[in-house]
Amino acid sequence: MTNFSDPTVVARAALSRLFEPSDTVGLALTLASGPIDALRIATGRISAGTTLTLEIAGLLEAQGISTRPQALGDALERWRPRVADLAPERDLATLERLGGILLTPECDEWPKAIDDLQLSAPSCLWVRGNYSRGIPELNRMVAVVGSRDSTAYGAGMTGDLAAGLVTRGYTVVSGGAYGIDAQAHRSALAAAQDERAMPTIGVTACGIDRYYPAGNEQLLRETARRGMLIAEVPPGSSPTRWRFLQRNRLIAGLCAVTVVVEARWRSGALNTAHHAAGLGRSVGAVPGSVYSANSAGCHRLLREGSAVCVTDAAEIAELAGPMGSVTLPEPDEAPAVHDGLTVEDLLLLDALPVRASTTIDKLASVAGLSIRDVLAGLSRLELSTLAQRTDDGGWRRDTPHPYSRRPHNNSTNSSSNSSNNSEKG
Amino acid sequence: MTNFSDPTVVARAALSRLFEPSDTVGLALTLASGPIDALRIATGRISAGTTLTLEIAGLLEAQGISTRPQALGDALERWRPRVADLAPERDLATLERLGGILLTPECDEWPKAIDDLQLSAPSCLWVRGNYSRGIPELNRMVAVVGSRDSTAYGAGMTGDLAAGLVTRGYTVVSGGAYGIDAQAHRSALAAAQDERAMPTIGVTACGIDRYYPAGNEQLLRETARRGMLIAEVPPGSSPTRWRFLQRNRLIAGLCAVTVVVEARWRSGALNTAHHAAGLGRSVGAVPGSVYSANSAGCHRLLREGSAVCVTDAAEIAELAGPMGSVTLPEPDEAPAVHDGLTVEDLLLLDALPVRASTTIDKLASVAGLSIRDVLAGLSRLELSTLAQRTDDGGWRRDTPHPYSRRPHNNSTNSSSNSSNNSEKG
Repeated sequence: MTNFSDPTVVARAALSRLFEPSDTVGLALTLASGPIDALRIATGRISAGTTLTLEIAGLLEAQGISTRPQALGDALERWRPRVADLAPERDLATLERLGGILLTPECDEWPKAIDDLQLSAPSCLWVRGNYSRGIPELNRMVAVVGSRDSTAYGAGMTGDLAAGLVTRGYTVVSGGAYGIDAQAHRSALAAAQDERAMPTIGVTACGIDRYYPAGNEQLLRETARRGMLIAEVPPGSSPTRWRFLQRNRLIAGLCAVTVVVEARWRSGALNTAHHAAGLGRSVGAVPGSVYSANSAGCHRLLREGSAVCVTDAAEIAELAGPMGSVTLPEPDEAPAVHDGLTVEDLLLLDALPVRASTTIDKLASVAGLSIRDVLAGLSRLELSTLAQRTDDGGWRRDTPHPYSRRPHNNSTNSSSNSSNNSEKG
Repeated sequence: MTNFSDPTVVARAALSRLFEPSDTVGLALTLASGPIDALRIATGRISAGTTLTLEIAGLLEAQGISTRPQALGDALERWRPRVADLAPERDLATLERLGGILLTPECDEWPKAIDDLQLSAPSCLWVRGNYSRGIPELNRMVAVVGSRDSTAYGAGMTGDLAAGLVTRGYTVVSGGAYGIDAQAHRSALAAAQDERAMPTIGVTACGIDRYYPAGNEQLLRETARRGMLIAEVPPGSSPTRWRFLQRNRLIAGLCAVTVVVEARWRSGALNTAHHAAGLGRSVGAVPGSVYSANSAGCHRLLREGSAVCVTDAAEIAELAGPMGSVTLPEPDEAPAVHDGLTVEDLLLLDALPVRASTTIDKLASVAGLSIRDVLAGLSRLELSTLAQRTDDGGWRRDTPHPYSRRPHNNSTNSSSNSSNNSEKG
């Protein structure tokens, strides 16, 4: 799919090794002069000239990035030590051996959503895996991220959410780390029934030819086979702290929703969430026990209002927008016997004794209703089998068979109604 | 404190038996004609007259309460069955025996906050207990409510929150029910060191001479002794579903913040929360396990945006406003070794090998920094004991003693720094 000898492709492959992720000066240079000239300038083969230098400064300023006047000069010095090691053809050959492709902003398959990163957008994306149908659209991509030291609760929730998302046709995006990330990939793969589906994408901080961390090698191989691995750094690159942090912005940028399942008060997952919020993407946080330090970061997001509380895949789908718009069914709790009654009938029902019978006058006084309202209400309650005439001409509560069907709310009532003044707490 | 023979007091005591809670017509009548004439009219001793009838209709309409033209006529019929049973002097005598007082809107001690309930405000409040310093001001009152069938988690959280609130000088208000309510009262009483404090107030759906539910009798007696019991219905009144629901609005109205600790998807506690939100009061919800049905109501509130996520008493105090304004300390997590480093120094730190030594040139290429930046950065890292010169003139990472104090962030670092490319997950 990728033309590995296209000069633009080769130039971008080289730039992705020259620039660290989010090298805004480098990206402004690329934007101003195109990738081929950008590479010539960045490697010192041609000089930038005053006009271009001013244009780059203008681009940076327009993005609110304050730079020193000599920003480009500084950048050239920063890039110089790496020039000798550039070998984009070798990197592209590695990619080809892996059966991968290089996505560039110039190609149709480029995920447009990532351009929201503006001057932090990647120079290109190194991709391997089940690419036949391309990278899914933004509103089908959900990031599921969280702590490496996840708890059993976090793992369980991640599994439920990932499986529920895949079943609904979403792709679960994560970072391939231990803990929540690994569980997200694993459960997404397990839930995918259809080999043509794209259950999960791992966005790696290292080159896509490497499996990091080593303990996740099998999982990452399977992700590369049935899903995808994506990186902005070229093959062979090591994961560094900076690249982990920047990888988080890529995950946020690729997804309509970022869900944090478990995160400590300080956590890389919060970094991903903040990137997502900064991009105007939806952020969900899974609540958990207040006593679990691994949920403190989620609660922090909820408290700050940066995230919406999500408890299942349907709620996440709702955040993902149109494609995922589903009406949430209310949890299936048995309706109470008094559901749907008017205030008057509720007062009357509470005034009716369960065993002994009572009179209309007494009911009016106890319930605080007029005689007329008591008579009308009793007819309604009798119809709903909630009130019963007694042999002595009085009234009492009808205690129905526990599984009888109530006409007024048309649902079974599985609890005993013998207790009178019970509060729904 | 209460003048039990004051005609206004006697009239309001009677009206509180004649009207069910939130009888808007009755309250409009009281507002329009004063309690003494309202009682005369409500009991049929005098007639309302056209002007008053119109005034009442106007009051109801102004509050957006749609009524039928014959609203007052309907109400008179509704009140009539109870007229014969009125005995306000007997009720007040019961109150006096209990050492209680009757608060009316006419007295100085009336909690002004409750007037926010407008035409649903109570006719009067029947109060018993440790009244020497009156009902605390709104911004010292926090409602802690939740399910009757609370879990160990809910009980634990309630205990922590109630104790934390009382320690900070707040009064914990709840409904005296089983579960969260009882735990809130219990923990508040246990946390109160000072007999002059007002740790907790129980707002009951029945008369304050009754202990409902029976299993909480001892707790309610203790609440009445060291805290307070408050009701809008007179002594002897039974708790009914309607009164439970209306009691919730009183709790919400009396408190600056309502906190729901545990609640099922349908729960009376959510009703209290919605009352509080409707009154513009703050609402907090405690998160919990998604797998716990008893937290589903809390998550619902969080998801709907009706509540703020709260995890400790300090966060609740923050919601309560000025008196409780405290700066939240961040949880005491050990800062990471790289906290506070610039991007350049972070890149450099990651490029430094842990064991072998490396050269300036190599560092520049690996880190993607200029030679100048590498030299400057190494000086800073050396000062922070993060980088170390080697005997052969190269550089490597310094692996400090785990408990050494770092100059650059002035805090102890309790974790090993030997792993290089570790991600904070």
